[in-house]
Amino acid sequence: MKIGEQQMKQALQAYIDLYNKDDLDGVVGLYADDATVEDPVGSPLKTGKQAIRDFYQYAMTTGARLSLAAPIRASHGNSAAMAFDVKLTMPEGKLLIRVIDVMTFNAAGKFASMKAYWGPSDMEKSR
Amino acid sequence: MKIGEQQMKQALQAYIDLYNKDDLDGVVGLYADDATVEDPVGSPLKTGKQAIRDFYQYAMTTGARLSLAAPIRASHGNSAAMAFDVKLTMPEGKLLIRVIDVMTFNAAGKFASMKAYWGPSDMEKSR
Repeated sequence: MKIGEQQMKQALQAYIDLYNKDDLDGVVGLYADDATVEDPVGSPLKTGKQAIRDFYQYAMTTGARLSLAAPIRASHGNSAAMAFDVKLTMPEGKLLIRVIDVMTFNAAGKFASMKAYWGPSDMEKSR
Repeated sequence: MKIGEQQMKQALQAYIDLYNKDDLDGVVGLYADDATVEDPVGSPLKTGKQAIRDFYQYAMTTGARLSLAAPIRASHGNSAAMAFDVKLTMPEGKLLIRVIDVMTFNAAGKFASMKAYWGPSDMEKSR
């Protein structure tokens, strides 16, 4: 079944908004039970709700805040993508990370997978 | 083998620059012989150099011009991604399409695959 473009874009926007409220249940609730997360791409896959919850619970300790760098893109299939910037505070100071996330959707409109494209070269010191 | 982040980013920038010069050989030369292109995501896969050349040869008839919407992202693996805007002229007028491309790389530093995330909702009339 094909998910609507607007439904996918709304889910990606909800991801940004819920994350910025540190709403752990809200963010995890966007995912399917058997979803996978590869963040960053090239790191080991996290599979299933518990692993995904653990990942976001840790991530939210950094106080990260997400802002879109360009409008969210949909597709002709069951996936959508967005470029955004992450500002966070690490022990060594404030950081900016430039990221592109790609989400695929299941028939129920939940994220089946998330891949986050960013590397060391996409991080810089911030103010 | 892992491709360097800067090498991947340079290849994505070269893609933009060569495309904007209508350099068909240059764009096709960035791809591996057995590469795949899914543009837009959700459409049938184009496989191999000839299918990819045919695709770009047609695309270049639209006079499309590409501009980055945010800095190119790399990853911790063999892939990179970029958000960009396409301006092109169709019989019905000028169009803007908002796209995110994800490229994976082979060990030789050529594109092994390209996926272009954009849907009908990412197109609008332009001036």
